[in-house]
Amino acid sequence: MKIVFYTAGGTIDKIYFDAKSKYEVGESILGEILREGNVVFEHESKVIMQKDSLDLTDEDRDTIFTAIDNEPNRHIILTHGTDTMVTTAKRLNEIRNKVVVLTGSMSPARFRSSDAPFNIACAIGAVQTLPDGVYISMNGRIFTPDNVVKNVEKGVFESLSS
Amino acid sequence: MKIVFYTAGGTIDKIYFDAKSKYEVGESILGEILREGNVVFEHESKVIMQKDSLDLTDEDRDTIFTAIDNEPNRHIILTHGTDTMVTTAKRLNEIRNKVVVLTGSMSPARFRSSDAPFNIACAIGAVQTLPDGVYISMNGRIFTPDNVVKNVEKGVFESLSS
Amino acid sequence: MKIVFYTAGGTIDKIYFDAKSKYEVGESILGEILREGNVVFEHESKVIMQKDSLDLTDEDRDTIFTAIDNEPNRHIILTHGTDTMVTTAKRLNEIRNKVVVLTGSMSPARFRSSDAPFNIACAIGAVQTLPDGVYISMNGRIFTPDNVVKNVEKGVFESLSS
Amino acid sequence: MKIVFYTAGGTIDKIYFDAKSKYEVGESILGEILREGNVVFEHESKVIMQKDSLDLTDEDRDTIFTAIDNEPNRHIILTHGTDTMVTTAKRLNEIRNKVVVLTGSMSPARFRSSDAPFNIACAIGAVQTLPDGVYISMNGRIFTPDNVVKNVEKGVFESLSS
Repeated sequence: MKIVFYTAGGTIDKIYFDAKSKYEVGESILGEILREGNVVFEHESKVIMQKDSLDLTDEDRDTIFTAIDNEPNRHIILTHGTDTMVTTAKRLNEIRNKVVVLTGSMSPARFRSSDAPFNIACAIGAVQTLPDGVYISMNGRIFTPDNVVKNVEKGVFESLSS
Repeated sequence: MKIVFYTAGGTIDKIYFDAKSKYEVGESILGEILREGNVVFEHESKVIMQKDSLDLTDEDRDTIFTAIDNEPNRHIILTHGTDTMVTTAKRLNEIRNKVVVLTGSMSPARFRSSDAPFNIACAIGAVQTLPDGVYISMNGRIFTPDNVVKNVEKGVFESLSS
Repeated sequence: MKIVFYTAGGTIDKIYFDAKSKYEVGESILGEILREGNVVFEHESKVIMQKDSLDLTDEDRDTIFTAIDNEPNRHIILTHGTDTMVTTAKRLNEIRNKVVVLTGSMSPARFRSSDAPFNIACAIGAVQTLPDGVYISMNGRIFTPDNVVKNVEKGVFESLSS
Repeated sequence: MKIVFYTAGGTIDKIYFDAKSKYEVGESILGEILREGNVVFEHESKVIMQKDSLDLTDEDRDTIFTAIDNEPNRHIILTHGTDTMVTTAKRLNEIRNKVVVLTGSMSPARFRSSDAPFNIACAIGAVQTLPDGVYISMNGRIFTPDNVVKNVEKGVFESLSS
C-alpha cells in the first residue's frame, strides 16, 4: 500500500509568519507525525497550493481536481482548510477508482496541542479500508461529502442526518 | 456511532511503578488522546485486565473473548500488548456481527514520544469503515489476523504476503 | 518570594492570527509552563504591550521602564522580542532595587517544540539568585546588557568578551 | 562557562523497564532538554549511579561526595531522587570552590508531562549565578540544604522558615 498526501493549505499547515522569522517556509510536520506513528507503508507528499480555504476559488478547485484525478496511486489523503472542506469534497466527488480522504485541523499541526496528528492518523486508518469514493475525516468521524457540515460555532464537523 | 475501548494491558498502558510513586494506579491517557483529537463520537472504555501480553494464558483469552462477544456495541477497539497480539486476534476471529480492531504501541502512551496516540487514532479511522471482522492496526497498517506477524527485530508488524 | 512576569510581546507570545481563528486572542501559555514546573512561589503576570520588538519605539521603552520602575515587587521577568532585547535591557539598566531578567524565545511558546519553556524556567532560576540589576537570559546563559549581542545568523545570544 | 551534569538516579531518570523492552537502557533525555533550550554553553554529563534515592546508603553518598569534590569544573548540577535529596545535599555541604545544585523531578523526564525539563532549566539559571555552595532547586525555588524539606503529602519542596 502506498498513500499519497496532498495539501491544499489550511490551518493544519499554518505557520507563524514574520519577515525576520526562520519559520517563513512552511516545512510540513507530516514527516514528524508519520515518524512518531512508526509507519511502515510507502508514502509521498505533494503540495498543490497553500491557501486559506476561504480564499479558494473555483479555479483552485479545478486545479485540485486535476491533480488528484491524474494521480496514479489509489490512496489519497488531502489536507485542506476546514471552512470550505465540504465544498471541495463535493467538487472531487466524481473522481473514480480512488479513495480520497480530506482532513485538516482546527489548530496548526505545529502547535504543542493540536488535533492535527490525530486527524492525520485517523485518515490513514480510513483511507486504506474504505471503498473508492471521497470522504471527510474530522473529529474522529468519517463522513461522505453530502452528509456533513462544519458547525462553525462548535468548531466540529457533524453529519446532517445524525 | 459509538466506539467501545477495551484494554487487556500491554506496553501502551505501561506506567512507571514504584512503591512511593503517585503513578501506581494506571490512569489511562486514552481520554487525553481523544480530547486532543476533539472527537465527537460516543465512547466508553472498559478494562478487561492489565497484563503483559507475554503473560496472557488461554484462559485470559477466553475472558477477553467472552467480554467482547457479549458487548452489545458493534465497534470495538481492544488495546493489547504487541508480543501476542496476533494470537489473541486469531482467538477472537470467530466473533460475529462486530468490528474488532486490536492495537497497542511499542512505547507507553504516557511517554513524551510514543506511537500510542497515532495507533489509537488510526484504529478509530479503521473501526468505523471496516466490514465486520477482527483486525490488527499497527504501524499505520490494517492487517487481518491470518496475514500478519510481529517482526520482533525491527519492532514492526508486517503482512506475511506483503 | 514573588515573581512578577511582564510581557512586551515578541516571538515567545506569537500566536497564529487569522480573521476566523479562535486563536485571535493571545492567551499566554505562561500558566501552562508554570503548572508543568509545579512551581510553588507566588507569581503574577502583566501585559505592557504586545509588539514585535523591531517595532518598539523609544516611547515604548519609556513605557516599559516606567511600568517596571513602579512595580513594587523586586523580582521581575520581562518577556520580550529577541531582536531588540539588548536595546531594551540597556534602557532599563538604571532601575534600582530590583532584579530584572529579560528573556524571550526564537520560536513561539505555543509551538510543540520551542525554547520558550526552557528560557522561562532558566530565568526563574536566575532572577531569585542574582543581585539587583538588569540581565538577559537566553540560550541557557545569563548576560549583562553591556556584554551581550544577538548573533542573528546563528540565532543565539553571545557575550562580547569570551 | 561549562556545566557538568552528574546523575545519581531518581525518578527523573526512571524508565520503563521490561525484559523484552527496548527501554532497558536508561538513555538520558538531558540531551533533548538542552537541545530544545538551544543552549550554547559547554556541558558534559556523567553517571555516578542510578538508584532510587530511598536506597542510597552512606557509602553511596561518600561516592557522590568524592566524585563531585574531585570534579575540576566549578558548575555542577546533580540530578537525584527527591526522597533523600536533602540528606545528600547536607552531606555535600562541605564541598569548597564549587556551585552544586541538586535537582530532580516528581515524574520521569521521559513522560509527556513532567516537571523535569523545567527543573533542569531552572537549575541551569541558578548554578551560574549563585555563589559557591550547595543548593536544591525544586518547584521553581532555590533552597539551601539546611532550610528545606520535602513535603511528601503535597509533593513539593518547602523552606522551613517562611
